[in-house]
Amino acid sequence: MTVYTASATAPVNIATLKYWGKRDKSLNLPTNSSISVTLSQNDLRTLTSVAASEDFKEDKLWLNGKLESLESERTKACLADLRSLRQELESKDSSIPKLSQFGLHIVSENNFPTAAGLASSAAGFAALVVSIAKLYQLPQNMSEISKIARKGSGSACRSLFGGYVAWEMGQETNGEDSKAVEVAPLSHWPNMKAAILVVSDDKKDTPSTSGMQTTVATSDLFQWRIKEVVPKRFDEMKESILRKDFATFGDLTMKDSNSFHAVCLDSTPPIFYLNDTSKKIIKLIHELNKREGKIIAAYTFDAGPNAVIYYEQENELKVLGLIYKYFNKVNGWEKLDTKTLDTSSDIQADPELYKGVSKIILTEVGQGPQDSTESLINDKGLPKAVAN
Amino acid sequence: MTVYTASATAPVNIATLKYWGKRDKSLNLPTNSSISVTLSQNDLRTLTSVAASEDFKEDKLWLNGKLESLESERTKACLADLRSLRQELESKDSSIPKLSQFGLHIVSENNFPTAAGLASSAAGFAALVVSIAKLYQLPQNMSEISKIARKGSGSACRSLFGGYVAWEMGQETNGEDSKAVEVAPLSHWPNMKAAILVVSDDKKDTPSTSGMQTTVATSDLFQWRIKEVVPKRFDEMKESILRKDFATFGDLTMKDSNSFHAVCLDSTPPIFYLNDTSKKIIKLIHELNKREGKIIAAYTFDAGPNAVIYYEQENELKVLGLIYKYFNKVNGWEKLDTKTLDTSSDIQADPELYKGVSKIILTEVGQGPQDSTESLINDKGLPKAVAN
Repeated sequence: MTVYTASATAPVNIATLKYWGKRDKSLNLPTNSSISVTLSQNDLRTLTSVAASEDFKEDKLWLNGKLESLESERTKACLADLRSLRQELESKDSSIPKLSQFGLHIVSENNFPTAAGLASSAAGFAALVVSIAKLYQLPQNMSEISKIARKGSGSACRSLFGGYVAWEMGQETNGEDSKAVEVAPLSHWPNMKAAILVVSDDKKDTPSTSGMQTTVATSDLFQWRIKEVVPKRFDEMKESILRKDFATFGDLTMKDSNSFHAVCLDSTPPIFYLNDTSKKIIKLIHELNKREGKIIAAYTFDAGPNAVIYYEQENELKVLGLIYKYFNKVNGWEKLDTKTLDTSSDIQADPELYKGVSKIILTEVGQGPQDSTESLINDKGLPKAVAN
Repeated sequence: MTVYTASATAPVNIATLKYWGKRDKSLNLPTNSSISVTLSQNDLRTLTSVAASEDFKEDKLWLNGKLESLESERTKACLADLRSLRQELESKDSSIPKLSQFGLHIVSENNFPTAAGLASSAAGFAALVVSIAKLYQLPQNMSEISKIARKGSGSACRSLFGGYVAWEMGQETNGEDSKAVEVAPLSHWPNMKAAILVVSDDKKDTPSTSGMQTTVATSDLFQWRIKEVVPKRFDEMKESILRKDFATFGDLTMKDSNSFHAVCLDSTPPIFYLNDTSKKIIKLIHELNKREGKIIAAYTFDAGPNAVIYYEQENELKVLGLIYKYFNKVNGWEKLDTKTLDTSSDIQADPELYKGVSKIILTEVGQGPQDSTESLINDKGLPKAVAN
C-alpha cells in the first residue's frame, strides 16, 4: 500500500479593512476588497496533513481529533478544484501517480482552543488547500491557490500570504480575478504586534454568511460603504502599510471596524457583534491615543465581540501596560515579563472590565503557510493520535 | 404693581425619523428633515408660567423649583425673538403695554422625574416659547413659533403640534424655512400607543450636540444617510402616517433608529447609545413581529439607551403582554389591568433582562401645547411653591 503524504501549516489573519458582503455566495465573491495582517503561527495556526492512496475508498477529514463530514459544498468545491489542477499535470505527464483519482485523508489540528471563539476557518481552509497543493505538487503560485481557498471560506484566501495581504475583489463573474496578493511581506514591517482580548459573551453570534446576506439585502448605508468608503480606504490603507505609517494605518483600521459594525446595525433585523465589554475596550484605546496625542494602538473587531489590538513593538510597554492594568487577572500574560510594563496610566475604566474577557493572546505579524516536517498522519494514512 | 401672566403646557415628542446633525449650530438648523409622534401630556409634559412686569429688573427662570441661570445663548435667542415679535405689535398699537421692555419671570415644571433620563428639553423649550407667545399675544401661527423653539433645542420645534409632526429642514441660511408642520392630527390616528422602557446605564451619554458634531465631521456613511436615505424615508413615513399603515410606519421607524445609531457608531471616536439591554429589547420586538407575521410593534431609541415602543391599541394585549412577561418587576404598570394582558408568548429572552430597566411609562399619542388654567406663579410674579 502506497500512501503519499504532505503537511503544511497556515496562519490566522485578522482583517484591518473588512470583508462584509458577498456578490456571489457559492463562489465567495466579495462586494469589496479587503486587507489583513497575518498573525504569527507560533500563537495561532492550523497544521494539516493529507494523504492520498489508491486504497482510500473515500475522502475523510479529521478535525482536532474528530472525524468530520466532508459533505459541505465549500470543502467539496476546494477538493474538486485541486483535483482538477492535479489532473492537468497527470494528463501532461503519464509517469506521475494519478493522485487526482485517489481518496484523500485529511487530518487537521489548531494550536489554539476552538473555545477561544476565534474564527479558525481561514487558517483551516488555507492549510487544507496548501497541504493538498503540496501533495499534488501543483505549480500554481499562492495567488492562484488563494482562489481555491477563497471558495472554502472567503477570508481564507488572505491566509495564503504572510505579512500584509490584500484580497482584490475582482470583477469577473467566475471569480478568476478575486484573489489574495501580498501588499508587503513580514520583513517590510516586522514590528507590528497584536493583542487579542477574547471577550466572553452569553449570546450566539449571527453566523457571518447569513449576517452578510442580511446586510447586503437590507442596509441602506451598505451600498455607500462598498461603492465609496471602502475603495478609497483600500488605497489609503495599502499606502499606509507601504509607508509603515502606523497613525494612518491605525486610524483607518478603527474606522473600518466601526464602519463594518455600523452597516451590521443598519441591517434589518440589526446585527450586533460588539457588546458592552467591546465598547469599553474601544473607549480605552481612544483614550490612550488621545493622551498620547497620536494613534499608537488600533482596535478591530470581526463578527464577534473579541478585540484585536494592533500596535508597534516600540509602544508595547505603554499599550500593554494599559491593557495589563485592567486585564491582569486574565490568562495569557505568561510569555511576557509584566514587571517591565508601564502601568502608570491614570486612564479610568470600569475596574470590573476584566470579568468580560476570558483570555488574552499576545502575538504579532507572521509568515504565510509553511511546509511542515511534523505530520499528523501515519504510514497507513490515518490520524496518528485521535483525542476522542 | 401690575403683573401680566400666562401659562401653557407642552408635550414631549419622540422622533420616528431621527434628527442627527446640524448644518448651523447656533440656529439649530438640521442636516435632514425629521418626523415625530407627540406623546400624551397626561404622562409627560412641561407646564410653564410666565410673568412680565415693569418692576422686574431682570429675567429669571425657576426650573423644577430651582432658580436657574438664563445665560445660555439658546434661551437668550428665544427670548430675543419673542420680544422682537412683541415689539412689532407694540409699535403698531401704542395702547398695549410695553411687555417687550419688561423683565420676565419664568417658572417651569415637568410632571415626570428628570431622573427618568428622558430628554425634557423639547417640552421645556416648547412650553417656554408658547407661554411667552401667549403672554405677548403674538398672532403668529404654531409653525412660525416653532422656529423660535427650534433655536432653543432643535427637536423642541416638533413639540408645537400634537399628533404626527414633521420638522422640515428648510434650505435658507437664516433658518426661516426650518420649521415644524403637522403631518396629521391626533384625531387622524388616535390609537397609537407608546411604552417607554427607561434603561439604566452606568455611563454618561455623549451629549447630543457634541455627538452630532462628531458624526457630521467624521462619519463617512453620514453623507449618504442625509442625502439619500432620509429624504426617501421622510416621504415614505409621511405617507404611511396618512394611510395609518402601521406595518410600514413601524418598519421605517425601526430602520431609521438603527440607521441613526449606525452613523453614531461610524463616527470617530464612535458614539454608543445602545447598551446590551437595549439590544435585547430590539431582539424581543423583532421576534414578536416575526411570530406575528407582521410588524405590530416598533422600537426607537434616541441619544440614550431608553427604548420607546410604538404599537396600536388593538395589539396592546399582545405587545404589552410580552413586555409584561419580561418586565413585570419594573415600576409603571399601575395604570393598567395587567391581568387582561396576553402573557402566553413563548418568545425566549434573558430572564434577568428586567434588571436593566428602571421604569416603564405607558403612554400614547397626544395633543400639542395647551393653555393652562393652572399657574405656577403668584400675583407678585414669583414661584408659588419652591421645592428647594
